[in-house]
Amino acid sequence: MALIVQKYGGTSIANQERIQAIAAKVKKFRQNGDDIVVVVSAMAGETNKLIELAKAIQPQPQPRELDVLMATGEQVTIALLAMALEQIDCPARSYTGWQVSIHTDNAHNKARIKNIDTDKIFADIAAGKVVIIAGFQGIDTQGNITTLGRGGSDTTGVAIAAALNATECQIYTDVEGVYTTDPRIEPKAQRLDNITFEEMLELASLGSKVLQIRAVEFAGKYKVPLRVLSSFKDGPGTLITLEDDTVETVRISGVTYSRDEAKLTILGVPDRPGIAYGILGPIADANIEVDMIVQNVTADGTSTDFTFTVHRNDYPKAMEILQASAKTFGNGKVTGDTHIVKISLVGVGMRSHAGIAAKMFQALAQEGVNIRMISTSEIKISVVVDEKYLELGVRTLHDAFELDQEP
Amino acid sequence: MALIVQKYGGTSIANQERIQAIAAKVKKFRQNGDDIVVVVSAMAGETNKLIELAKAIQPQPQPRELDVLMATGEQVTIALLAMALEQIDCPARSYTGWQVSIHTDNAHNKARIKNIDTDKIFADIAAGKVVIIAGFQGIDTQGNITTLGRGGSDTTGVAIAAALNATECQIYTDVEGVYTTDPRIEPKAQRLDNITFEEMLELASLGSKVLQIRAVEFAGKYKVPLRVLSSFKDGPGTLITLEDDTVETVRISGVTYSRDEAKLTILGVPDRPGIAYGILGPIADANIEVDMIVQNVTADGTSTDFTFTVHRNDYPKAMEILQASAKTFGNGKVTGDTHIVKISLVGVGMRSHAGIAAKMFQALAQEGVNIRMISTSEIKISVVVDEKYLELGVRTLHDAFELDQEP
Repeated sequence: MALIVQKYGGTSIANQERIQAIAAKVKKFRQNGDDIVVVVSAMAGETNKLIELAKAIQPQPQPRELDVLMATGEQVTIALLAMALEQIDCPARSYTGWQVSIHTDNAHNKARIKNIDTDKIFADIAAGKVVIIAGFQGIDTQGNITTLGRGGSDTTGVAIAAALNATECQIYTDVEGVYTTDPRIEPKAQRLDNITFEEMLELASLGSKVLQIRAVEFAGKYKVPLRVLSSFKDGPGTLITLEDDTVETVRISGVTYSRDEAKLTILGVPDRPGIAYGILGPIADANIEVDMIVQNVTADGTSTDFTFTVHRNDYPKAMEILQASAKTFGNGKVTGDTHIVKISLVGVGMRSHAGIAAKMFQALAQEGVNIRMISTSEIKISVVVDEKYLELGVRTLHDAFELDQEP
Repeated sequence: MALIVQKYGGTSIANQERIQAIAAKVKKFRQNGDDIVVVVSAMAGETNKLIELAKAIQPQPQPRELDVLMATGEQVTIALLAMALEQIDCPARSYTGWQVSIHTDNAHNKARIKNIDTDKIFADIAAGKVVIIAGFQGIDTQGNITTLGRGGSDTTGVAIAAALNATECQIYTDVEGVYTTDPRIEPKAQRLDNITFEEMLELASLGSKVLQIRAVEFAGKYKVPLRVLSSFKDGPGTLITLEDDTVETVRISGVTYSRDEAKLTILGVPDRPGIAYGILGPIADANIEVDMIVQNVTADGTSTDFTFTVHRNDYPKAMEILQASAKTFGNGKVTGDTHIVKISLVGVGMRSHAGIAAKMFQALAQEGVNIRMISTSEIKISVVVDEKYLELGVRTLHDAFELDQEP
């Protein structure tokens, strides 16, 4: 008999029929003898609808009041799912974030969970009930409603699983698991049976938007076994676990990409300490997140070209700031490119296998894909290429590392 | 400087524009130096929408979960109104029922308020904020969300006013106050400047659906001055007060009616003690509310005809029960009529002025309106007449008692 925390997202509970289907699924788990705690999001589209309502009245909604408003989304779904379960004779009980209670800090719209009271949950489980908890929301020490920010329901699921010391946290989505790459680009993409938290973090942050990053971090930190699986189709999904140290061979888990990149270069800056900070400081002050950073010394060795990437939405703002900086630091010249993408190879242990990077660059070169930037970490190698090479680049790497083979 | 509690109902806050209009109205009160606490309902139609959602999933929704669901309606409006006020530089802060806290018993869907914590409200008022409170909802001792039943927001408004010892509780509706009768039937109907709680109770229960009965009872009990006024048009509305003892002259405040009546008669029951209970007991057991009751001895003096009225929806059920009773008590004969209405004359002090009833019956007789039943109380005289005489009867009485004259 296992204690399983299941999280269902917006598309999984988009309407009455979906809610009833989820109830039937949960009941089946109960009949197998498992104890079930369900965490749900708002119905698909509801949160956006509420934000629109707010913005029509106040273009920059008060963060506290926006949380009061948004929290209603999950409150609706917990009640409906509890009714759907009761209707099929599966006793259930719903809780909002404050009822459980899920204590958070007071950072409205992006609060972080501090701790969770488990008394009520364990009491209901002992009484044979399915416990249903509103994701995404909590309560601060002043009794204000808080929300965790986009995708926060995943984090709620993991936090509940950690607090309850659950056997597993299952995140139900509209995909069947984590794939070696985007199946829309490479139809031969394979579902991975398992993946490490670190790999998942890289895959999630790089564009495979299956799971919320904070949830994965949380699961890694508290060692909660996390499984991504489909709410529409039965299947084992992908289990995200701590790294298996017995695996000696290098393992490439996937190829991921991001379309939302833009590249900026400031030319001919002097090659001396403090320059990088001088350039990136004002960018950070404008709340623009920088992704890749590359600095090359020029031929004469006295100055360098400094290149970095930002989210495409931030490009105009970043360019404006950089042009101002160029007057102070550089030779006044700034270039930029919004038609670039990032492709990354992710896999545990690749850093200790020098051959991986070489093989990656060779495969891309053979297909005529020109690499504009390179960045590496413990478990990934990223390259920036021209936008037009996105699909070709992804498929080339997927092939080269034989990710289309059954795991 | 007064402390005013204002309650705005569903049509007053039906959409973005209406919410902004209410915010502007509240700000004007603040600028006059008054402290304002606002109680709001769900946006018009929202509560019904939520109930439909629930019933699609569970035809008889779990009362506890239905309350979780319905409570989201007011939670949306408090947040939006707070934003609308902040947007026009009028500091505001919203509270759900549990946040205030509004403590209730645990009768889900029809809970009663037990007490209200006022600390947060007074602290916010002292800080110059408008306090916005979700009507209709509260919290029981177990931390469950409760709702007060239909129209419960009026009750919340009055209860808050009582707890704060407010100067006045203003109930904003889509009418300009309490009228001498329904203006749709008698265009000469006049708005009353004031009315007593007792008169208001009779008017409300008899069909002038301006205010929730429980709210009026509550206001009478805690001596909260209550004013009904329009949220769409400026005006003094109608003040509902304790009876003014200085008024010696009889005062007829209005003519009201109810279309939802049905009449049942059991014929030839023995004229002995216990019969009334024997007949009405099974009706009450079926949760059918009985309104008027009349019992007449027949010509020979040995048996009586026993007549009572019920809500038209309850007629089939009541008839079924009565037919069973007739086998035990009566001569087996039962008659009924669903084409009847009730018209009532309401006014403080009318009981001590015998002429009122006579004048009423005479006026109806002169117009050929046949009276089928009569019932009287301290402050009202009701008659049951054929449905077709409804408008004629109302206008006749309105004329006869000169209610079309300026008060």
